[in-house]
Amino acid sequence: MISAVVMAGPGQPLELREFPRPELEPGAVLLKTLGSEVCGTDTHLWQGQLAGVPYPIIPGHVSVGEIAAVGPGAVARDVSGRPVEPGQVVTFLDVYGTCGRCWFCTVGQATTRCPERRVYGVTLSARDGLLGGWAEYIELRPGVHLLPLPEGLDWRAFLATGCGMPTALHAATLAEIQFGDTVVVQGSGPVGLCATVLAQLRGAGKVIVIGGPSARLAAASAFGADVVIDIAETTADERRQAVHDLTGGRGADVTIEATGVPAAVREGMRLTRDAGRYVVVGQYTNVGDARFNPHLDLNQKHLDIRGCWGSDVGHLYRSIQVLTRYGTQFPWTTLISGEYSLHDAQTALEDVAAQRVVKALIVPGR
Amino acid sequence: MISAVVMAGPGQPLELREFPRPELEPGAVLLKTLGSEVCGTDTHLWQGQLAGVPYPIIPGHVSVGEIAAVGPGAVARDVSGRPVEPGQVVTFLDVYGTCGRCWFCTVGQATTRCPERRVYGVTLSARDGLLGGWAEYIELRPGVHLLPLPEGLDWRAFLATGCGMPTALHAATLAEIQFGDTVVVQGSGPVGLCATVLAQLRGAGKVIVIGGPSARLAAASAFGADVVIDIAETTADERRQAVHDLTGGRGADVTIEATGVPAAVREGMRLTRDAGRYVVVGQYTNVGDARFNPHLDLNQKHLDIRGCWGSDVGHLYRSIQVLTRYGTQFPWTTLISGEYSLHDAQTALEDVAAQRVVKALIVPGR
Amino acid sequence: MISAVVMAGPGQPLELREFPRPELEPGAVLLKTLGSEVCGTDTHLWQGQLAGVPYPIIPGHVSVGEIAAVGPGAVARDVSGRPVEPGQVVTFLDVYGTCGRCWFCTVGQATTRCPERRVYGVTLSARDGLLGGWAEYIELRPGVHLLPLPEGLDWRAFLATGCGMPTALHAATLAEIQFGDTVVVQGSGPVGLCATVLAQLRGAGKVIVIGGPSARLAAASAFGADVVIDIAETTADERRQAVHDLTGGRGADVTIEATGVPAAVREGMRLTRDAGRYVVVGQYTNVGDARFNPHLDLNQKHLDIRGCWGSDVGHLYRSIQVLTRYGTQFPWTTLISGEYSLHDAQTALEDVAAQRVVKALIVPGR
Amino acid sequence: MISAVVMAGPGQPLELREFPRPELEPGAVLLKTLGSEVCGTDTHLWQGQLAGVPYPIIPGHVSVGEIAAVGPGAVARDVSGRPVEPGQVVTFLDVYGTCGRCWFCTVGQATTRCPERRVYGVTLSARDGLLGGWAEYIELRPGVHLLPLPEGLDWRAFLATGCGMPTALHAATLAEIQFGDTVVVQGSGPVGLCATVLAQLRGAGKVIVIGGPSARLAAASAFGADVVIDIAETTADERRQAVHDLTGGRGADVTIEATGVPAAVREGMRLTRDAGRYVVVGQYTNVGDARFNPHLDLNQKHLDIRGCWGSDVGHLYRSIQVLTRYGTQFPWTTLISGEYSLHDAQTALEDVAAQRVVKALIVPGR
Repeated sequence: MISAVVMAGPGQPLELREFPRPELEPGAVLLKTLGSEVCGTDTHLWQGQLAGVPYPIIPGHVSVGEIAAVGPGAVARDVSGRPVEPGQVVTFLDVYGTCGRCWFCTVGQATTRCPERRVYGVTLSARDGLLGGWAEYIELRPGVHLLPLPEGLDWRAFLATGCGMPTALHAATLAEIQFGDTVVVQGSGPVGLCATVLAQLRGAGKVIVIGGPSARLAAASAFGADVVIDIAETTADERRQAVHDLTGGRGADVTIEATGVPAAVREGMRLTRDAGRYVVVGQYTNVGDARFNPHLDLNQKHLDIRGCWGSDVGHLYRSIQVLTRYGTQFPWTTLISGEYSLHDAQTALEDVAAQRVVKALIVPGR
Repeated sequence: MISAVVMAGPGQPLELREFPRPELEPGAVLLKTLGSEVCGTDTHLWQGQLAGVPYPIIPGHVSVGEIAAVGPGAVARDVSGRPVEPGQVVTFLDVYGTCGRCWFCTVGQATTRCPERRVYGVTLSARDGLLGGWAEYIELRPGVHLLPLPEGLDWRAFLATGCGMPTALHAATLAEIQFGDTVVVQGSGPVGLCATVLAQLRGAGKVIVIGGPSARLAAASAFGADVVIDIAETTADERRQAVHDLTGGRGADVTIEATGVPAAVREGMRLTRDAGRYVVVGQYTNVGDARFNPHLDLNQKHLDIRGCWGSDVGHLYRSIQVLTRYGTQFPWTTLISGEYSLHDAQTALEDVAAQRVVKALIVPGR
Repeated sequence: MISAVVMAGPGQPLELREFPRPELEPGAVLLKTLGSEVCGTDTHLWQGQLAGVPYPIIPGHVSVGEIAAVGPGAVARDVSGRPVEPGQVVTFLDVYGTCGRCWFCTVGQATTRCPERRVYGVTLSARDGLLGGWAEYIELRPGVHLLPLPEGLDWRAFLATGCGMPTALHAATLAEIQFGDTVVVQGSGPVGLCATVLAQLRGAGKVIVIGGPSARLAAASAFGADVVIDIAETTADERRQAVHDLTGGRGADVTIEATGVPAAVREGMRLTRDAGRYVVVGQYTNVGDARFNPHLDLNQKHLDIRGCWGSDVGHLYRSIQVLTRYGTQFPWTTLISGEYSLHDAQTALEDVAAQRVVKALIVPGR
Repeated sequence: MISAVVMAGPGQPLELREFPRPELEPGAVLLKTLGSEVCGTDTHLWQGQLAGVPYPIIPGHVSVGEIAAVGPGAVARDVSGRPVEPGQVVTFLDVYGTCGRCWFCTVGQATTRCPERRVYGVTLSARDGLLGGWAEYIELRPGVHLLPLPEGLDWRAFLATGCGMPTALHAATLAEIQFGDTVVVQGSGPVGLCATVLAQLRGAGKVIVIGGPSARLAAASAFGADVVIDIAETTADERRQAVHDLTGGRGADVTIEATGVPAAVREGMRLTRDAGRYVVVGQYTNVGDARFNPHLDLNQKHLDIRGCWGSDVGHLYRSIQVLTRYGTQFPWTTLISGEYSLHDAQTALEDVAAQRVVKALIVPGR
């Protein structure tokens, strides 16, 4: 039997349950979990802030494991077309089932809006199997996108940024940062910290991080932020003045929002210079409306605003390349504040919800 | 002496004043006015809704005239580098003085944000000369961008769309309409009508115009709108349902806002499909805040929103090409509801303010 | 039994063969062929100019038919997600089997380079079934992308441009034509003629077509070309001079190559202005090298050159929208020079090879 | 009197001549030269490989100096709009006179193709003044774009990359490198080395430099190249195989050419993957034709090729930001192989022509 953490419903204590070892279809893969991240989304799931979640679920969307078994017949292949084999250490795209045939997948070229899309650990139910990462083993259905971790990329280094990296990479791509740009990052959680790194890997001239608490701002500085501003110690006006002063009075060339707070959106518009670009990636749950002035904040400002939802295989693949290539420059594993066994998943969740940690991992073998 | 209409200040009746014939510097040009448009901006100027206007002014920013005289010495040249000559019929970019040297002109590549920029008929004062189009003659300073009207483009056809065409062309360029896209245009004034035409000249599959009053919607239909929706006869929910039904439930691929009403912005976000594009060009004056939901309307929707301010030489040059090439297909002059002499400028202004006309022209020679 | 035209190998006379009615898998569709185009590719296939063709094949890649039967169980759906039904008139993307999982499909976002990709009528063998359009019935395997023809789009109008429209639409998209641009189209076959139309549906200011023979140039004029230049009656220098004179000495803003002749590529570079854009879509077969001067023709010219290969579902979907919406403006069916029964397929092929026709159709029911 | 190096004509020995101190116009600036680069262009000038050079000239296009005097009246301002003052250390854009009014400056938005454009040290004559950097003082005419060096950027660090950095930055911008891309750089001169750095500042996953001689390849490695390939020790086939092996058989995502050798262009096309991007920046002089296969190398490959000519203010401004921000990571000054006095300019030129040095500086105060 296989142990897995089950979230039976919003607000209910996590439980450890036993599952039978799954029968593998052709093309399926069974993964022995090395680690799985705990992220803000897991706290949203627990607080019931996401719609359409088929509780009970096994949480854990970004995970790494060793291939324990492959299904009979058709060989599973990785994204580069190479057959995978037992013993390999791989990760996989949590997004499963993107159809490749619907209007959004084909004409719209916006696969993150495919209606068939399901997410391991989020919108796949524990009733249907080991479909989340907080478990001894994970069942990867045929068609799940597999990506081996390259030599030189430790699985902990990969999980240290978790889904923050592909999410931030998607946002940073939409941000079209130019060499020498001043980039403001709103928020200093995993997405904000990854955006801080990625801005430097676009040649930003200056990176300003606005967030908190102080441990996260210290991480931002360690990862190269030129300036950090603590939201607990400043007013919105003071922050605007600070960015104004740091940019010769123009404002940021590019701002990336990763806060989850509606009021941050108007502030972000105003931190950005005329004809600048603003990417909003942090408004992942519905916690209310925001106000803005269409004339001043958008039209006269000639502002370009881009909402950013989800990520796809390319974002994950590119994240792995970046994590591997720039691992010396950026010590990813220092972002891991704590590792928790399956039994301690509840504690992990609460530590993340309270922002007591930057990144927490579930490590079943612990 | 030269007669010109003067707007001495907000709310004050327009007056006809006499000006001496200007001495021309080298590179300057004196234009005998054939016609000058009356546009919504002129009503904003009269209502005092624009900041930084150096009253008294001579209104009239988009104008056409015949070259009456050129300054001594250095020859004025048109945008294509050809010397201009007395007798030629030309228009000119109302935006004057863009420096070509500041940060926005060079590094930022956003010339519409150049701080040196002044606008004929708007931010140049009557104290400094004949710097607006509602006059018998217009003084074009050295460096004003001159564009001859090509053979085959009647000056009335050019003025029929006025500044609406370059403004809409700027917006339609930012809209990145793809072949076959469904485009919603919010607003049926000159900018909205031009956007309706330009959407077709990007190969849109369907163009839906939401606006009013009915005379303008009739014009939209005449200019190729596939569907028109009258805002006076529908609720926002009904309009959203209509667009939903016309797009297989997805919403518009692209929406262009040209209304000036803050509440239209949230509606426009919701009329646009996931991963679609929304260009906001109509919020030209500050008439208050708007609300929206950052999660639903922006982030989850993966929406791309672009504020669009002003236009530059390229937009005007390209407008002229389009007006000339597609003049058979689109009968521009039918947009002109009335022509007014200099003496009747006050009436023209009031007719435009009341939306009694689509496009009004001041024709000094009348 | 079902009759189909078979091309047994390069240079061999086409034969009519009988096939059994296929058993349909779940998700498959049987189409009663209304018509199928004959295009330049078919003549390349017959001349053995394409590599990797699994002769014998049933030619015919772009086709329209009426749904005669659908497979059991899983319902086939069209690109917009609606179930299809017997009696519907549909076309389908000839490209079949694009995997949606390989590096090119996911990370590279270049589905036309997917190695799993096969093409009806080109790289699918008659040994495997009714997998080409020159047949009474066509077997559409599960996963083939289905697109119903909208009301208002006659199937002949759709086939009149054939694969020329999605190919040209792909090229015209890469061309990023701006409003008012001067566009040179090299070649006046179906792709060139469609590019001529599409340039106008991007608001081109002038469209110059260089090609031949005269019947095709007459079609170009009928479809809106502003200037046509016959290659049989001009030298390359004369053509360059003509384009020079038509563009104020600058050259074309955008040039689209659709000739298949290697020497046309250097000529096209030189017809294009400095900092212009050149899309090469016509070099579909390998007929030798070309020369150019990297300093003059590329680097100093600041030229942007884009090779364009194949097309995907989006291009076909958008073609259908364009053909439907602008059918009044462009009389597509006039491009059809001749319709041929299955028995006359050999004649059709030879007429196309000799450029005696603009577009030929195979119409089995004839 | 002021000493300056004069190149009287192609092949003639450089001479030191005396010039009177210039009278400054309003807006002009006199710069006391700290250093000026010697670059490949200077050797081309000496070999008579550039057209339209108004010999005699004072070579030296990228230079740094201290402001010695400013003209009367109108204050010269830097690119950010701040007035400049005697004592400031500044550089300036060598490109002077871009008109901001012609078709290319306005409609075409390709300022590097402006016909009014002149270049200090290249297309401005010594007959007209101290218009090149190999001189004790440089006369900056009104309108020259001034950029102060920020605190933290030593003038030697700035000159170590010279015009290589803005040129490479222009090329790297056109290259649209994505996170994790494999980038091949052809050429290991200053432009190639800067491209090697900039690829990393776009988050490239792997940077492969193909060039020579070995000292330059050692510099490439020191500046972060993951793999270097010596052209003197490999055949084109071996290089292609090497890139093939390093990219899972696909080829480079992006290739940047910086060699000046026509045959490199076809090789570069073939080193790039299907649907990849190829930027050609090194073909600065006309040294003959090249061959390629339009079907295999362009069309079927779906290749995107971009010629890159010159650079503008934005490229220089952004170069300075990058040089300042990433100076700790990349030790720019190590690229300087030698500093030469005005008297030794001939030796400097010959050392550069023979590729005996990576970067040579003329330092008048030496």
